[in-house]
Amino acid sequence: MQLTLHAYWRSSASFRVRIALALKELACAYVGHDLRIGAQRDPAYLALNPLGLVPALEVESHGQRHVLTQSVAILEWLDDMVPSPALYPADPYLRAEARALVAMIAADVQPLQNPRVLKRLRDEHGANMPASDDWARHWIGLGLDAVEVLLARYSGTYAIGDALSAVDCALVPQCTNAERFGMDLARWPRIQAVVTAARSHPAVIAASPEMQPDADKA
Amino acid sequence: MQLTLHAYWRSSASFRVRIALALKELACAYVGHDLRIGAQRDPAYLALNPLGLVPALEVESHGQRHVLTQSVAILEWLDDMVPSPALYPADPYLRAEARALVAMIAADVQPLQNPRVLKRLRDEHGANMPASDDWARHWIGLGLDAVEVLLARYSGTYAIGDALSAVDCALVPQCTNAERFGMDLARWPRIQAVVTAARSHPAVIAASPEMQPDADKA
Repeated sequence: MQLTLHAYWRSSASFRVRIALALKELACAYVGHDLRIGAQRDPAYLALNPLGLVPALEVESHGQRHVLTQSVAILEWLDDMVPSPALYPADPYLRAEARALVAMIAADVQPLQNPRVLKRLRDEHGANMPASDDWARHWIGLGLDAVEVLLARYSGTYAIGDALSAVDCALVPQCTNAERFGMDLARWPRIQAVVTAARSHPAVIAASPEMQPDADKA
Repeated sequence: MQLTLHAYWRSSASFRVRIALALKELACAYVGHDLRIGAQRDPAYLALNPLGLVPALEVESHGQRHVLTQSVAILEWLDDMVPSPALYPADPYLRAEARALVAMIAADVQPLQNPRVLKRLRDEHGANMPASDDWARHWIGLGLDAVEVLLARYSGTYAIGDALSAVDCALVPQCTNAERFGMDLARWPRIQAVVTAARSHPAVIAASPEMQPDADKA
């Protein structure tokens, strides 16, 4: 099985998949697409992902080529294909709770603060940069407030118990985004604790934006 | 196992879970929460789902009570607990494609046209109702354009082959929302065909908004 990840160093959805690949110790080629110049809307990329978002994972296996999109679907596929170490707990209720936490971030926070959304807010609805940043902080704050409540039930060293999981794959990149918008993680002590621990995990270090070949070196 | 769905008749995320419950022929009590009066931010509801969104599924089983949130996580849990009829295909690649289609709708379309987002666009960023409707149509259009391309690869009678799947659970409610914003499904012939077929499926009929006890009878 040969893997190629199409990503962008700063994209939090790309970061999620990189953590999972590193955790499962899967070798993967990397192709960066510079979202700042709209590379994700290049016809060659749209043929991989018609929605024009990163990441996409190309898989060559037994002479067949598959292109997988949507970071959360890719995490599930990785767990289906390479079960250990697991991204999701085995208990069906805890699995459901973990998937809910991932969805809170991946559906109800990140898409609302995605650069394409902030750009539209500015270009079509007259928001200036401080107003679009406020918009981003509003949705990040609501989401992480809820995540903080739920972590009280499940967290250990990491978001769900003491093993890195899909929840950490979603939470660490979201917290990196929060910090880029000037938010202080101290507002959420449990989140801060588990994200601090996760940031020392080798898989998270290897997956972090600044370690990627397309990272700005400035 | 006793199930209680906390929902709102018009909520598309609630509609997704209702289709899945009906497809699996699971009996489920129904509690409507009127989002128009902010019932989802009532402290009693926030204790169920700290993010204050519907749906939430209460499960009583073997003397234990669980509360599951996030419609996509609930669909996965239902498939884990009651495997047949399956919401996702068995082939891991086709599963991944189905999950990607669900995520496109559940993460990159619906959250951007959620009433709470349109309200904030109006209340905090000066958009009037036509402008917030345009915002909704923009994101729905981008998402369904991509779904239309992908359905060319997978659709049969329904979105993935000839059995109702999680993709239909996501797509039918999203199309109902599109129509509420005045969009014509004829723009996407494959989507229109599979959604028309799904709307005649008994599970979709039983799950549809106007059939729910909290539906406006006006």
